[in-house]
Amino acid sequence: MKRIGVFTSGGDAPGMNACIRAVVRGAVYHGIEVYGIRRGYNGMINGEMSKMDSHSVSNIVQRGGTILKSARSKEFMTPEGRKKAYANLMDLGIEGLVAIGGNGTFTGAMIFGNEYGIPTVGAPGTIDNDLYGTDYTIGFDTAVNTALDAIDRIRDTASSHDRIFFIEVMGRDSGYIAVQSGIAGGAELVMVPEVLTPISEVVETLKQGWSRSKSSSIIIVAEGDEEGSAQEVADKIKRQVSEDADIRVTTLGHTQRGGPPSAYDRILASRLGLGALEGLMAGQKNVMAGIINNDLVYTPFEDTIRLPKPINEDLLRMVKILSV
Amino acid sequence: MKRIGVFTSGGDAPGMNACIRAVVRGAVYHGIEVYGIRRGYNGMINGEMSKMDSHSVSNIVQRGGTILKSARSKEFMTPEGRKKAYANLMDLGIEGLVAIGGNGTFTGAMIFGNEYGIPTVGAPGTIDNDLYGTDYTIGFDTAVNTALDAIDRIRDTASSHDRIFFIEVMGRDSGYIAVQSGIAGGAELVMVPEVLTPISEVVETLKQGWSRSKSSSIIIVAEGDEEGSAQEVADKIKRQVSEDADIRVTTLGHTQRGGPPSAYDRILASRLGLGALEGLMAGQKNVMAGIINNDLVYTPFEDTIRLPKPINEDLLRMVKILSV
Amino acid sequence: MKRIGVFTSGGDAPGMNACIRAVVRGAVYHGIEVYGIRRGYNGMINGEMSKMDSHSVSNIVQRGGTILKSARSKEFMTPEGRKKAYANLMDLGIEGLVAIGGNGTFTGAMIFGNEYGIPTVGAPGTIDNDLYGTDYTIGFDTAVNTALDAIDRIRDTASSHDRIFFIEVMGRDSGYIAVQSGIAGGAELVMVPEVLTPISEVVETLKQGWSRSKSSSIIIVAEGDEEGSAQEVADKIKRQVSEDADIRVTTLGHTQRGGPPSAYDRILASRLGLGALEGLMAGQKNVMAGIINNDLVYTPFEDTIRLPKPINEDLLRMVKILSV
Amino acid sequence: MKRIGVFTSGGDAPGMNACIRAVVRGAVYHGIEVYGIRRGYNGMINGEMSKMDSHSVSNIVQRGGTILKSARSKEFMTPEGRKKAYANLMDLGIEGLVAIGGNGTFTGAMIFGNEYGIPTVGAPGTIDNDLYGTDYTIGFDTAVNTALDAIDRIRDTASSHDRIFFIEVMGRDSGYIAVQSGIAGGAELVMVPEVLTPISEVVETLKQGWSRSKSSSIIIVAEGDEEGSAQEVADKIKRQVSEDADIRVTTLGHTQRGGPPSAYDRILASRLGLGALEGLMAGQKNVMAGIINNDLVYTPFEDTIRLPKPINEDLLRMVKILSV
Repeated sequence: MKRIGVFTSGGDAPGMNACIRAVVRGAVYHGIEVYGIRRGYNGMINGEMSKMDSHSVSNIVQRGGTILKSARSKEFMTPEGRKKAYANLMDLGIEGLVAIGGNGTFTGAMIFGNEYGIPTVGAPGTIDNDLYGTDYTIGFDTAVNTALDAIDRIRDTASSHDRIFFIEVMGRDSGYIAVQSGIAGGAELVMVPEVLTPISEVVETLKQGWSRSKSSSIIIVAEGDEEGSAQEVADKIKRQVSEDADIRVTTLGHTQRGGPPSAYDRILASRLGLGALEGLMAGQKNVMAGIINNDLVYTPFEDTIRLPKPINEDLLRMVKILSV
Repeated sequence: MKRIGVFTSGGDAPGMNACIRAVVRGAVYHGIEVYGIRRGYNGMINGEMSKMDSHSVSNIVQRGGTILKSARSKEFMTPEGRKKAYANLMDLGIEGLVAIGGNGTFTGAMIFGNEYGIPTVGAPGTIDNDLYGTDYTIGFDTAVNTALDAIDRIRDTASSHDRIFFIEVMGRDSGYIAVQSGIAGGAELVMVPEVLTPISEVVETLKQGWSRSKSSSIIIVAEGDEEGSAQEVADKIKRQVSEDADIRVTTLGHTQRGGPPSAYDRILASRLGLGALEGLMAGQKNVMAGIINNDLVYTPFEDTIRLPKPINEDLLRMVKILSV
Repeated sequence: MKRIGVFTSGGDAPGMNACIRAVVRGAVYHGIEVYGIRRGYNGMINGEMSKMDSHSVSNIVQRGGTILKSARSKEFMTPEGRKKAYANLMDLGIEGLVAIGGNGTFTGAMIFGNEYGIPTVGAPGTIDNDLYGTDYTIGFDTAVNTALDAIDRIRDTASSHDRIFFIEVMGRDSGYIAVQSGIAGGAELVMVPEVLTPISEVVETLKQGWSRSKSSSIIIVAEGDEEGSAQEVADKIKRQVSEDADIRVTTLGHTQRGGPPSAYDRILASRLGLGALEGLMAGQKNVMAGIINNDLVYTPFEDTIRLPKPINEDLLRMVKILSV
Repeated sequence: MKRIGVFTSGGDAPGMNACIRAVVRGAVYHGIEVYGIRRGYNGMINGEMSKMDSHSVSNIVQRGGTILKSARSKEFMTPEGRKKAYANLMDLGIEGLVAIGGNGTFTGAMIFGNEYGIPTVGAPGTIDNDLYGTDYTIGFDTAVNTALDAIDRIRDTASSHDRIFFIEVMGRDSGYIAVQSGIAGGAELVMVPEVLTPISEVVETLKQGWSRSKSSSIIIVAEGDEEGSAQEVADKIKRQVSEDADIRVTTLGHTQRGGPPSAYDRILASRLGLGALEGLMAGQKNVMAGIINNDLVYTPFEDTIRLPKPINEDLLRMVKILSV
């Protein structure tokens, strides 16, 4: 393999730049040419590709976002779009791809690979940590720490005013950010998509807290919780307890996506970027590089897309014990 | 004056603890006894007061929130409530008060002072910086930096995805947080309660940006803007430009109230706490201590409550120039 | 087991408070009484122990340091000291101990356990990550992120001035902090106690960088490196390259020990605190609770003390590739 | 004036990029061409100058360091050097300069202006805040907050171990960083170049603290203190009190120079950059733009270089009261 392309796709995540850097520097190290493709599959279709060298990735390891920009591409979902993309890659002599993104990204790569035979190795870049085939995804640790910083700030106010706060964190299908930021933030309860926490249980928890003179409480709600958004949950609670209860809601939103990546994310991203590149060089294709139990593993896109990643029930149990 | 009380009231603000510390340590230094009153006027009414010494305020200068807790008190708005409060203060022999809070706090203190003659000196503690009689209020600088940190994170995502972001910051009647975080965050536009920015101007700004190939934009909306919340503004814009425009909204919310105070806020809080105490000792009453042009000044509560604090028009002009 | 004690000993580490909290809340949850012992073994000897309940550990999960304070105890190294300690524990009816600390702490506990039969389960609290029996120790992730934040700041200056910086991080016998902060910080080279990097290799790396027009370089030196402190290494280099080379040295020092623990450290500390407690309840003794490959394991103190924890050679290889 | 140049010189400071951005965007706004000169006076001599437009300064407002790089130039101190520099400026038709830096920078500009008549307006960029003619310099607020963050971390350890810490902060001739970070960090004592604090007074303060059962203490030493470095002061103290005293030393070093600028610094830098530009346009020369009591003022280089900036004695008094 003499020439490869690298791109980021889907929602951006802190650490994507560290991953791009590892792919590029690794390629330079191994004597392979590397092209950066801008705006994900859109750039492949529109020919937004340019050669990168060691300097192209200087001073980016600490930056959030992605210097290659990211996008979701409707055109790549059509055969015509993929045809154009393939033609562009062939023009440049690109023989393989490293795709940094999530399941949407890998689905595109799998279809593309099946149609045109171009090998892709993926690196899991998404703050949600909802990908089978790796213990953690790039961006997750930073997102949890960003959420945690916000929770710490809100706790200052909650305990100064004896208030109850419902804080909504990201995670449409996955409670990972909620559980980890909840444990670390000393939350009284964590509501996640994977396990239903009925409103009655929330009320019960709050009442138990009051009976033990807990004056303030923090409840973390994952975006995708079945009982609704943090605001909806808070409204339901208010109706059941009392209008006197000083209940507030904060939705952390997009702040969780950005910021300088944590040490963990930079190292993970570097390992996975290098792992994806070296996998591609060794003949891997249509697989995602992941780290499981500290070992580099390759999982077929088919599995990362299809298989669910269960949440750690031990951690949910821990929330209960620690909020006693 | 041999014995005084100190309390925090209204919304909490980072630096309130540094201010309490300065009052207590200052009192110890000057040989005056000091009582901490918990939960604002409620604690005065319910007798939640206890003696503080130098150790009571150890290791709090760096903490957000307020160790004395804060609350809004309906009972203190009644003559009966104030009567109880006065009786409790008399029981303990408290001869003067330092009140840390905003206009609601000072209004209560003024009425109380007029009725019972007990002198109060205020220290301006509110993140909104909406108090006449001081250049900056305690908590403002921290709130701006917290908002800025969020804006920086969101810019990572905005520029990775070529998106437009509307970010709502606190400030029901005041655009101070919006203007300062907007300039510091490199925002394209800042919408504040003091000056109407019509939707048409927002649209115009966005279009000008696109014509200069600005691919991402950040617009800061103060909570109290006349065009509505950030979500409402974004909805209006979307209707006028295009449904294709990738527009997102984030409301920063209560995270802006908490967190370790910045150096500026700790120093300001220390100066104002000490200034309030020493003013009280020197016979001041019904005034707020403030810093104007680096000098300590005392302004009658009447004025801090009644007079508006105009926003700096130069800064608004600067937003326009810097987003060229 | 009806009553236990918990203490922190040796150098403090961020997350110790989260660990104390998990032990205390876990004990309350399981209906066990728990005493907090202050200042490590000294407090055991001097009888500085008091009962803790759920409220005792409120609002500490986010704080660096240790509310139980820590110390190294010379007296506990004597039979007389341990005798006093045992008598004090017996007086209170304490049947088991959770010890949060490093190898010094565990050595003391092992001797004490052998002499008096009192069971201790340890939780690894040390920023150095130099303990066999766990993938990571409490405080390590925070220390790496603190070092990384400093490296990021210094890089701003290094690249503004085309300078070479030698940055010394903690790690007397272990290069873990150096390697992780070095990879994450984009360092050109990392010098660790486990593997000798001769001065000639440092010079070679710098020269290669210059030949590729790298204008600034960052080299991380672990405290315990054989070539000496960062200052000594820098002096040697200066003699070999040129007095014109703009070389600076910064020693990060004790800032690496403090600060609010990262999410990772709070969760790890919570798991290990609870794991130590539940191990003790289940009859474990003279073992340290650790997390290996995401599973809770107990390793005899004997092994944690005796066995070396090798550094990950893959990571050292990665430093080279990524600085190409 | 149709074409100007902008450069940074001397030690870098956080906010320099925000200042460059304000100069460039301001120039675009006013229809003036602007050239960026790299590496300070060296780039003027070597012809490292290139045209900047609005995009050149996108996404830099939040970055530490300076994108134009900085250096100290020996060659510019010679008439030959300045001659070359002038010739290069003339070749490009540059009619005026904005110089961002400190006294060394302004001294060069003054001599250059006197020799060749080219007008320069300065913007004060230095973390030390040691420039007459402005209340604060660009970078100072960030440096204080960086020092403060380190002090907060060290306090965790100091109070966990009942230790005394001597922390050295930057400030060769000026105690501003020391005083502000000392007050904000709750230090027991602050030692500054402007006012001698004899060792005996340090000892006295420590002893008084012990007599009031203060178990830990933090003493801030400015780099340029007459009693020596923090290490030297600590050694002297140790000899006078006791070898048992658990005294540690940390020198914060270059971390104080970098990092994302605070809100305050970004706004100050924007105002001063714009102020320098608009001053230049209005015919000012050989002056520094500054902000005094919130007003923009221009002070002749002669005065900024010659006149001392006294330290605020009130703040020193406050350290004493607050550490009671």
